[in-house]
Amino acid sequence: MAKSKFEYVRQFETQDPCLPNTWIVIRLDGRNFHRFSTDHGFTKPNDERALQLMNRAAETVMNDFRDIVISYGQSDEFSFVLKKSTMLYSRRASKLMTHIVSQFSSSYVFHWAQHFPDQPLQYPPGFDGRVILYPSNKNLRDYLSWRQADCHINNLYNTCFWALVQQGGMTNKQAEERIRHTFSADKNEILFSEFGINYNNEPEIYKKGTVLVWKRVEETVMKTCRTEEDPVERPREVTKLRKKAVPLHTDIIGDVFWEEHPDILEEECFG
Amino acid sequence: MAKSKFEYVRQFETQDPCLPNTWIVIRLDGRNFHRFSTDHGFTKPNDERALQLMNRAAETVMNDFRDIVISYGQSDEFSFVLKKSTMLYSRRASKLMTHIVSQFSSSYVFHWAQHFPDQPLQYPPGFDGRVILYPSNKNLRDYLSWRQADCHINNLYNTCFWALVQQGGMTNKQAEERIRHTFSADKNEILFSEFGINYNNEPEIYKKGTVLVWKRVEETVMKTCRTEEDPVERPREVTKLRKKAVPLHTDIIGDVFWEEHPDILEEECFG
Amino acid sequence: MAKSKFEYVRQFETQDPCLPNTWIVIRLDGRNFHRFSTDHGFTKPNDERALQLMNRAAETVMNDFRDIVISYGQSDEFSFVLKKSTMLYSRRASKLMTHIVSQFSSSYVFHWAQHFPDQPLQYPPGFDGRVILYPSNKNLRDYLSWRQADCHINNLYNTCFWALVQQGGMTNKQAEERIRHTFSADKNEILFSEFGINYNNEPEIYKKGTVLVWKRVEETVMKTCRTEEDPVERPREVTKLRKKAVPLHTDIIGDVFWEEHPDILEEECFG
Amino acid sequence: MAKSKFEYVRQFETQDPCLPNTWIVIRLDGRNFHRFSTDHGFTKPNDERALQLMNRAAETVMNDFRDIVISYGQSDEFSFVLKKSTMLYSRRASKLMTHIVSQFSSSYVFHWAQHFPDQPLQYPPGFDGRVILYPSNKNLRDYLSWRQADCHINNLYNTCFWALVQQGGMTNKQAEERIRHTFSADKNEILFSEFGINYNNEPEIYKKGTVLVWKRVEETVMKTCRTEEDPVERPREVTKLRKKAVPLHTDIIGDVFWEEHPDILEEECFG
Repeated sequence: MAKSKFEYVRQFETQDPCLPNTWIVIRLDGRNFHRFSTDHGFTKPNDERALQLMNRAAETVMNDFRDIVISYGQSDEFSFVLKKSTMLYSRRASKLMTHIVSQFSSSYVFHWAQHFPDQPLQYPPGFDGRVILYPSNKNLRDYLSWRQADCHINNLYNTCFWALVQQGGMTNKQAEERIRHTFSADKNEILFSEFGINYNNEPEIYKKGTVLVWKRVEETVMKTCRTEEDPVERPREVTKLRKKAVPLHTDIIGDVFWEEHPDILEEECFG
Repeated sequence: MAKSKFEYVRQFETQDPCLPNTWIVIRLDGRNFHRFSTDHGFTKPNDERALQLMNRAAETVMNDFRDIVISYGQSDEFSFVLKKSTMLYSRRASKLMTHIVSQFSSSYVFHWAQHFPDQPLQYPPGFDGRVILYPSNKNLRDYLSWRQADCHINNLYNTCFWALVQQGGMTNKQAEERIRHTFSADKNEILFSEFGINYNNEPEIYKKGTVLVWKRVEETVMKTCRTEEDPVERPREVTKLRKKAVPLHTDIIGDVFWEEHPDILEEECFG
Repeated sequence: MAKSKFEYVRQFETQDPCLPNTWIVIRLDGRNFHRFSTDHGFTKPNDERALQLMNRAAETVMNDFRDIVISYGQSDEFSFVLKKSTMLYSRRASKLMTHIVSQFSSSYVFHWAQHFPDQPLQYPPGFDGRVILYPSNKNLRDYLSWRQADCHINNLYNTCFWALVQQGGMTNKQAEERIRHTFSADKNEILFSEFGINYNNEPEIYKKGTVLVWKRVEETVMKTCRTEEDPVERPREVTKLRKKAVPLHTDIIGDVFWEEHPDILEEECFG
Repeated sequence: MAKSKFEYVRQFETQDPCLPNTWIVIRLDGRNFHRFSTDHGFTKPNDERALQLMNRAAETVMNDFRDIVISYGQSDEFSFVLKKSTMLYSRRASKLMTHIVSQFSSSYVFHWAQHFPDQPLQYPPGFDGRVILYPSNKNLRDYLSWRQADCHINNLYNTCFWALVQQGGMTNKQAEERIRHTFSADKNEILFSEFGINYNNEPEIYKKGTVLVWKRVEETVMKTCRTEEDPVERPREVTKLRKKAVPLHTDIIGDVFWEEHPDILEEECFG
């Protein structure tokens, strides 16, 4: 079989390495999730099950890609931040984004039934992905702030919109017109005075989205080993420290979070 | 909320449009599928169920991306060819590859149970993807020939290897050494003289892989309409022509296939 | 000297190979040539000396880069077309465009005095460059047609504009307003009826720009050698065939030129 | 003239913006300068005239591109560093590198006669260029240190090599073999003990290369204006502060230079 004759086509493949010493952010977004959420009866304005499923898929991704230092998700999007010095897949953008979006997508379907026990998945959902590079820590924090600010703005809008529709009896169109030109303060006021809703008391996961960070947890595992007291090799319970991705629903725009998690940004590659 | 202050981070996003008037090939490959196939009891050298599941996921992709003109799959890889003139996602490489790899991955999990009724999926599998551009029809055909030649070479090797192991009682290492320096003719001879296997009679799906092409099929649907004979609007059975992706296990290296499917290459963008 | 300590910075360099089997076009444009032409007393609407100097610089480029198959220039721009199969500088876009723009720029200054004997060069001019890839012959021809059509349109406009100013006594502003909304036919009419200029009789170099193509020319050189008649080695006049870039001022939009120069496009790389 | 019909070819042009908030380094190198230096009788190991001409061309570049914050040259190469926040040509890599390499090349020829009054330029020289991005100040300093360390290593080698040839009467081959496997200390010793040359006393421009930095200089210009004492508008001598590129031959590897020139790195774009 004349393999060599065709092999030249490999020369058309290109490399797309990410610039060294920059933060690599991979953001994925649901494809046609407006329709997907309707088809699967997501509650409005937020569906707790859907958000937890997103987080679960993101945890799977983090467990597979240990060079992710922080992730942030809200609505049908998730951002993964790879450390500046990562050499995963030689920093090739295509490899990184497709692997992560693939693992996220298959995990979303894999864990569906557990989060939607009463709602069968009707068709496989899709996500797109992109790679963005940030040279400085400030750029990276501003990126994450941008996504969390976006979460807040959308959630306030949606909370107000659906209160007007679900409790106020408005049509979608009427609700939209009512709040189109309002500021945040106005929406807070509508929620409070018309529906008795104090927006500040809304669940943090809705207002802040989800941050996934690594935490060292103790884990008890069985291991065949000796101890100082007992020189015979036998199975024993041993405590190990393991990195585990844990979800937080907290502000990442201010400095407090970053002061409490100095590890995330301190890593320096080539100085 | 000071959204505008963070918005500048969008400037760090880049466009990555594919050169116009070139064939866009997106190939995806299973990640760690050696381990995955072992963990899920795939039969060796080929698992019919696994191949059909790959094909099923690829069909889902084609139905979602109608600008794909042909797809080719073998083992744990699949290549999708978008027509030269496609303007899907403005030809942005990142969008195209992540959408396709995402849809493939979620479909693979979604359809798993149907193809592996007795084998639960233990964890979500991953695939990577890449984009390759081919300027000429000859380049494209050579790419597809390269993949099909690769299928043949690997399958002949694997068929021989596993015959030596499963029927010949060799260890993996022994089998590997036995055929390391052999040519195709030698492997054919081993199969025939030692195991009575005529390689030519092996299933085409193993030897050739799977080509997915569009076929126009008639479909009977219900539609509320009038006819010439009956001017009253009422539900009627109507026949529609619809494009459907159909699998073939045939040679695509020679000219016959391309003469029988002239539509695939004839499309010309900007001449 | 700790060289190795700094060497890592090379990893930040990127490769930018051009897609194989595509025409590589490098176009360069004068920087601030409006001002440059005024500072150096270029005649309007066309300065024969300046055009010949551009052509001379382009010839120098072609002699240095023998993989250029055709070049086209007009006004202060020049396009160089590298053959599809060129492996010059491993097809790296940065190398190709900087080398060509550099050689053009230094040649422009080097040959200045010969073309402008009475006009000293007051400061070194600048050119920018870009790389554009064209997959098909039709795309390439359309690119060259686009530049030649542009030459015609600008030249007709400028010829008309400067006739109104130089012979018609209008201000620049008046001339501009007079022809702003006219079609080609109107401009031809103005030139003919008001100034007795038949645009068709204008010099071809102004109307068509300059095409540089290779021609095999005979060259007489001295070489120390034997002949059949005289077996003694001695210096003799020998005729050699040599590729030489020659300027044409001819239509390249229609088919005639391409039928007369079949070599330019026939080259095929990987088919 | 059917311009619109061809205009589509513009879609094949690509953008290549440099990542924001990174240092943009453009390095250019002489093409075939070994031959060029021989053809033009450059003295070995260093030709003062040639180095000054390089510096002169680099100054011209800096005067045209005021966003360059520092330049460094040695031998036949020069590096230009654009400030992190530059928006020159929208940070398009092609534009930046071709403009700079073009201006450098034409300036080199333009100023030739002044630096080589007795040596006519025989043919126009060429330079190539490339763009490299550095995210952090440390990366940028390490890049410049890499080039200066390279200058030192090459100059020590060349000084030793040419002493052996010019004063020691060795052939090139003999000299090469003599120092092939020596360390810096060995070369210093050869120079001192065999030729009485103390390498430390060699000219700084040879050992360190040339750094070009901006300096604010006072300039006396004529300006028509009033003064407090004399309210009549008349031409007067006025002192203006102007940025001027000045050459230094100093160490840029250590901290001293950077402490003395804090402006170069302090600029911060998007923090």
